[in-house]
Amino acid sequence: MAMTMTQKILAAHAGKDYVAPGELIEAKLDLVMANDITGPMALPIIKKMGGHVFDKDKVVFVPDHFTPNKDIKSAENARAILKFSLDEGLTHIMVQGKNGVEHAILPERGLVYAGQAVIGADSHTCTYGALGAFSTGVGTTDIAAGMAKGVAWFKVPSAIKIHLTGKLPPYVSGKDVILHIIGRIGVDGALYQSMEFTGEGVSELSMDDRFTICNMGIEAGGKNAIFPVDDQAREYMRQAGVNEWVEYEADEDAQYVKTVEVNLSEVRPTVAFPHLPGNAHTIDEVEAADKIYIDQVVIGSCTNGRYSDLEKAAKILKGHTVADNVRVMVVPATQKIFLQCVDNGLVDIFVKAGCAFNTPSCGPCMGGHMGVLAKGEKCVSTTNRNFVGRMGDTEALIYLASPEVAAASAIAGYIANPEKVGGEN
Amino acid sequence: MAMTMTQKILAAHAGKDYVAPGELIEAKLDLVMANDITGPMALPIIKKMGGHVFDKDKVVFVPDHFTPNKDIKSAENARAILKFSLDEGLTHIMVQGKNGVEHAILPERGLVYAGQAVIGADSHTCTYGALGAFSTGVGTTDIAAGMAKGVAWFKVPSAIKIHLTGKLPPYVSGKDVILHIIGRIGVDGALYQSMEFTGEGVSELSMDDRFTICNMGIEAGGKNAIFPVDDQAREYMRQAGVNEWVEYEADEDAQYVKTVEVNLSEVRPTVAFPHLPGNAHTIDEVEAADKIYIDQVVIGSCTNGRYSDLEKAAKILKGHTVADNVRVMVVPATQKIFLQCVDNGLVDIFVKAGCAFNTPSCGPCMGGHMGVLAKGEKCVSTTNRNFVGRMGDTEALIYLASPEVAAASAIAGYIANPEKVGGEN
Repeated sequence: MAMTMTQKILAAHAGKDYVAPGELIEAKLDLVMANDITGPMALPIIKKMGGHVFDKDKVVFVPDHFTPNKDIKSAENARAILKFSLDEGLTHIMVQGKNGVEHAILPERGLVYAGQAVIGADSHTCTYGALGAFSTGVGTTDIAAGMAKGVAWFKVPSAIKIHLTGKLPPYVSGKDVILHIIGRIGVDGALYQSMEFTGEGVSELSMDDRFTICNMGIEAGGKNAIFPVDDQAREYMRQAGVNEWVEYEADEDAQYVKTVEVNLSEVRPTVAFPHLPGNAHTIDEVEAADKIYIDQVVIGSCTNGRYSDLEKAAKILKGHTVADNVRVMVVPATQKIFLQCVDNGLVDIFVKAGCAFNTPSCGPCMGGHMGVLAKGEKCVSTTNRNFVGRMGDTEALIYLASPEVAAASAIAGYIANPEKVGGEN
Repeated sequence: MAMTMTQKILAAHAGKDYVAPGELIEAKLDLVMANDITGPMALPIIKKMGGHVFDKDKVVFVPDHFTPNKDIKSAENARAILKFSLDEGLTHIMVQGKNGVEHAILPERGLVYAGQAVIGADSHTCTYGALGAFSTGVGTTDIAAGMAKGVAWFKVPSAIKIHLTGKLPPYVSGKDVILHIIGRIGVDGALYQSMEFTGEGVSELSMDDRFTICNMGIEAGGKNAIFPVDDQAREYMRQAGVNEWVEYEADEDAQYVKTVEVNLSEVRPTVAFPHLPGNAHTIDEVEAADKIYIDQVVIGSCTNGRYSDLEKAAKILKGHTVADNVRVMVVPATQKIFLQCVDNGLVDIFVKAGCAFNTPSCGPCMGGHMGVLAKGEKCVSTTNRNFVGRMGDTEALIYLASPEVAAASAIAGYIANPEKVGGEN
C-alpha cells in the first residue's frame, strides 16, 4: 500500500508495514523536548510515571522562552529543568547563554535529523520536517509520557501535497512562501494533516527557508510539515555532526487529500495582517493602500532567526538607519548564529543602523519579554503568530513578514517593500 | 570662606558667593533626567505644574530599566516617556536599541560634564561626579519639579575627603577601590555627605574607574561623589563633544568632617558579600574559606558596563570557557560600547567562552529582567547593590565584585581570584 513520507516514518516507528490516515498508533520516539515553560509542568507527571527518562540521550530541556530569566518564576522554572537534567544525567544539558532557541539549536546540534519521530512541548516543533523528520508539538501530559516511556500515540494524519516549482525572486524567501500558502489555504487549511512539500522547487529553497516554512506548518493547522531529503539537507546534517540517518520517500501513488501548486517565481513579498497568519497581503497591496506606520520591528525567532535570515536583513539595513522613534529588536536564534553575525560584520551593520542586537531568546515572539508591545502599537515581526495579544497588549497590531520586509520597514518607519530599498540581495 | 568642590558648584548654581554645610538652597539645574520607571510617575506631576519642561535641551528621559520592554506595563511606561519627549520637542530623544543605560549614555553623549548641577530620578545619578559635576539622585516629585521649573532644593552636604595615593596593582580596579572604601566606612559612612576624591592617586585611575567609584557613592550613603577635573577628564569630555565646561577646585582650607586615606597600591580584589555593599572581603579572605559556588555571573550595569570593564573581563575569559551549568550575562552599558566590543573582538571572546552577550539594559541589576535569580541561587555581579531580593528571590545571594573577579569566577564556577587565572592584564 502506498504511503506518504509522514506515513512511512510513523509506520516504521510503530513497527508496522503500513499505517493508514486516521489510524491510531503508538510510535517510538527518537527525541523528546520541552522548554522552560512546558518542561517544569511535565516534571511532576514524569515523577508519577517513575521519575526517570527513558533514554538519557533522547530527552532535552531547552531554556529559551523566559530566558535570560525574566522574573523569579521564570528563574525557578529554568532552575527546575536544569536540576532535573543534571539529576538524570542527561547527555544534552542546555544552559542559558550557551545554546539558543529550541527549534534552532536542536537541528544545529545534530539532535534532530531525517527519519526521526520527534515530539516537543511547543507547537512549532514541526520545524524539523525541513530535515525529513516527522516532528510535531504536543501537550504537557504527552511530553511527560514521552520522556518517561519513549513512546507517543498519534492519529496518522492525512496529507496535503504542496508542489513547488520555479525559483524564488530576489527579496522573496521562505517566509513569503509559507505566508502565501497559509493565505491561500487558511489557518485551518491543513488541519491535522501532514504538509508534504515536493517538486523541483524544493532544491531552490535553502535549508533556512525550509525551516521557516516547516516552522509555520502549524499555523495552517498542520500536524506536521515535511520536506524530502536532498543534498542540501544531507550537507546540513553532516555539518551538524550527524553521521547516520534514514531517508524516506513518498510513494509515487501515495494519497493526498489535495495538492497545492506553488510557483516560487510568482510569490511576492507577503505580509500577514492582524490577527491571523492567513490574513496575507502582497507587498503590492500594502503599497497601494495607506502607509502603515510602525513602532517596533522584530527580526529573529525560531521562524526567522537563522544566519541567512539575519544576513538578508543586514544587507538591506547596511548603510541605512532605523527610522526615528522606531525600535528594532534583532534576536539571533542561537549563540553560534550570534557569533557568525559578529564575525561576519552583521552586528556592526545592525548596531550602526540603530538596532538592539539581543541575546538568543524567544522573548518578544510570544510577548514574553525583551520587546513587548504597548496598547495601540504596531509591529512588523518575522515571528510566526499575530494573534490578538500575542506580543503584548490586546490592542497592539502584529504584521508578520520576512526579514527582508522587516528590514525595509525598519528603515522606512512603515511597512515597506524591500525591492525598493536596494541593498545587495 | 573656604569651600569644597561640591559647595562651590552648589553656591554657583544658587547664585551665592558661599554656601555652608546644612544650609538649604535652591539651585538652578543643568540637566534633569528620569528613566522608564521614574519618568512615567513624574509626568502627572509635571502636568499639574503647567505641563511643560523648563528647557528642551536640559530634560532627558532614558528607557533602560525594563527595556527591551519586559511586559505590557513596561511597554506602556516606555511609550509614555517617548510620547512626552516627542510632544515636548525635547532635543535628546532616547529610543530603545539606539542609546543605553542612563548613567553611561549621558556622559558618553556629552550631556553631563564638569561644573554642572544634575539631578536624576535614580539613586546612582551620583555617577557624573567622575567628570567634576555635582549630581545626585532624587525622588519623583523633585524630578517633576526640576523638569518643570529647572530648580531643586538641596541641603548643602558636609564633606568627606578621600585622599588617594599610589597606583592600582594588576587585576585591581575602581570597583575594588569603592568596595574597599565602603567596607571601611560602612554603608552609612558618608550619610548625606559629599565624597570628595583627591590626591595624586586620582590620575592613576581611568575615567571608567572614576565612574564606577562615583556610581557607588550612594552605597556609602553619600549625597554625591566627586573627582577633580584633570587632563583625563578633559579629554573624555572633548571626545564626548563637550566644548565648554566649568572647573571647580576645592579650596586648600576647605572643611571636611573626616579624611579617609586610601593607598591604591594596597587595595586587594574585593568582594562585597550578601547583603550589603559594605560587607567587604578581600579575595585573600575568600580564598582562605570554603569555596562559594555560583549559579550566575553578571558583568555590566551602570557601575561596570563600560568598555574598559568589559575589556578586563574579556582578557581573563580569553581562551577559557565558563564553568558547566553557570550562566554568564554580559551587558554592555550602551550601544556604542556594544559596537566597540564587537569591533575589537571582545564579543567573540565572550560568546566563545559561553557567555550571553545582551543588549544594553539595567535588566538583572535590580532584578528587573534578563537575569533574575531563583531561590537559593548565588550570583557574582559587577552591579552596585546586593540587598536582600535585589536581583530576584529574597533567598538568592549576591556577591558584588569587579569585572576581573566576575570573569575569574565565571571560569572557576566559584568566587575566584583573577590573579590566579592569568589573562593579559
